[in-house]
Amino acid sequence: MVNGIDRPLDLLNSAKGKEILVQLKSGKQFVGTLLAFDIHINVVLEGAKEVENGEQTTSYGLTFLRGDTIVFISPSAN
Amino acid sequence: MVNGIDRPLDLLNSAKGKEILVQLKSGKQFVGTLLAFDIHINVVLEGAKEVENGEQTTSYGLTFLRGDTIVFISPSAN
Amino acid sequence: MVNGIDRPLDLLNSAKGKEILVQLKSGKQFVGTLLAFDIHINVVLEGAKEVENGEQTTSYGLTFLRGDTIVFISPSAN
Amino acid sequence: MVNGIDRPLDLLNSAKGKEILVQLKSGKQFVGTLLAFDIHINVVLEGAKEVENGEQTTSYGLTFLRGDTIVFISPSAN
Amino acid sequence: MVNGIDRPLDLLNSAKGKEILVQLKSGKQFVGTLLAFDIHINVVLEGAKEVENGEQTTSYGLTFLRGDTIVFISPSAN
Amino acid sequence: MVNGIDRPLDLLNSAKGKEILVQLKSGKQFVGTLLAFDIHINVVLEGAKEVENGEQTTSYGLTFLRGDTIVFISPSAN
Amino acid sequence: MVNGIDRPLDLLNSAKGKEILVQLKSGKQFVGTLLAFDIHINVVLEGAKEVENGEQTTSYGLTFLRGDTIVFISPSAN
Repeated sequence: MVNGIDRPLDLLNSAKGKEILVQLKSGKQFVGTLLAFDIHINVVLEGAKEVENGEQTTSYGLTFLRGDTIVFISPSAN
Repeated sequence: MVNGIDRPLDLLNSAKGKEILVQLKSGKQFVGTLLAFDIHINVVLEGAKEVENGEQTTSYGLTFLRGDTIVFISPSAN
Repeated sequence: MVNGIDRPLDLLNSAKGKEILVQLKSGKQFVGTLLAFDIHINVVLEGAKEVENGEQTTSYGLTFLRGDTIVFISPSAN
Repeated sequence: MVNGIDRPLDLLNSAKGKEILVQLKSGKQFVGTLLAFDIHINVVLEGAKEVENGEQTTSYGLTFLRGDTIVFISPSAN
Repeated sequence: MVNGIDRPLDLLNSAKGKEILVQLKSGKQFVGTLLAFDIHINVVLEGAKEVENGEQTTSYGLTFLRGDTIVFISPSAN
Repeated sequence: MVNGIDRPLDLLNSAKGKEILVQLKSGKQFVGTLLAFDIHINVVLEGAKEVENGEQTTSYGLTFLRGDTIVFISPSAN
Repeated sequence: MVNGIDRPLDLLNSAKGKEILVQLKSGKQFVGTLLAFDIHINVVLEGAKEVENGEQTTSYGLTFLRGDTIVFISPSAN
């Protein structure tokens, strides 16, 4: 088992500064470097890029994603 | 009757470290090892894989699933 | 009138250990033995089976159902 | 004006033990005898029957209806 | 400007005992006499009638409308 | 930059007594004079008129709009 | 990594007075100068313009956007 993940937010904390994949309820996905998050799962990505069907379609740079639109978050490198 | 499940979260607690199936409101399912959960039913899966029509389609590794997108959770081995 | 049901949760309390029918917002139904519930109407079923058009389609065993996906709950034996 | 209804829940309180009609967000309606309700508008009906297009289609007996799925409630006899 | 409406609920308070129009999120409208409301905008109408395309289709009498299904409320006589 | 708008509600406060445009989640728009609002963004309009495709279709007079149905609010005169 | 963004709202704070892009759940986008925001992610834009398919379609001037309709916010200049 992975060490140090006792609570769900521990995974987000360990992913700070790393690239993550964010799935939105609308069906779209974002990739980018996780800079910050809070208990509402609001997140800020650096170098955010929208992904559709596996292809990056739009670059947004620094982006604030509202937590209630998020389905799941996965660090890319695991 | 199953011993030791007095409250709904007791089932999730007893499933830590075991494989679970998670049904999302979008219709998709995830399987993976339950590492952590909280009272919002946010969960972290290790070795998360998306399942569609009974087939595993995408591997995400460590994944944070937001609780309000979840319909049900079932430990696979019961 | 039925005795002992002063508050809605009293019905769920009296149904512990009995088979119940759970209607989800997605249109699906589950049947199973009610083991536990909480004030969010999160429930745990033992021997949970999905029902579509009156036929049991999938067995899930022990299952946690998130309260905010539930429309109604009816003990089967009444 | 009707006496004794100063707050919305007063109507539900005066309807205890009487037949009510419950409209759900899904478009379905239930009729049954109101046994209990709470501030979330969770209700318990005795002799609950589903109604579609004015016809009773399914009998559920004692049924717990989750408040956030309800559009309106009307006592049948008024 | 209309006197005495400093807060939104002041309008509902001044409409007690008068006929109001209630627009629901489902697209349906109700007319009836406002008997009671609370801070959730739950309302009770006397002589409630459903309106579709400007025509009254169904009479419900005393009716409790759940606040979270309401889009707007307009006193008919203004 | 516009003076005096430190918090979002400051804009609504400065728009009291003026005509505003309200966009609803249903796709409909209302115009009318803003009389009152609260922290839920419930608003009361005087002389409320529904607008579809830029044309005013229905007059409602004094109208209470529930905050959770609102997408945006714009004072017409700016 | 970008300095000074420890919490998600820090990005919005640093974007005050700058042009931002706001994605709504309805699929529409707004651009405008961020004047104010709060913890609900309600925002006020100056010179707000609606954008569809990359083209600015409607100018609204000063506009209050309700937080729960927002998917993401991205400062344009990053």
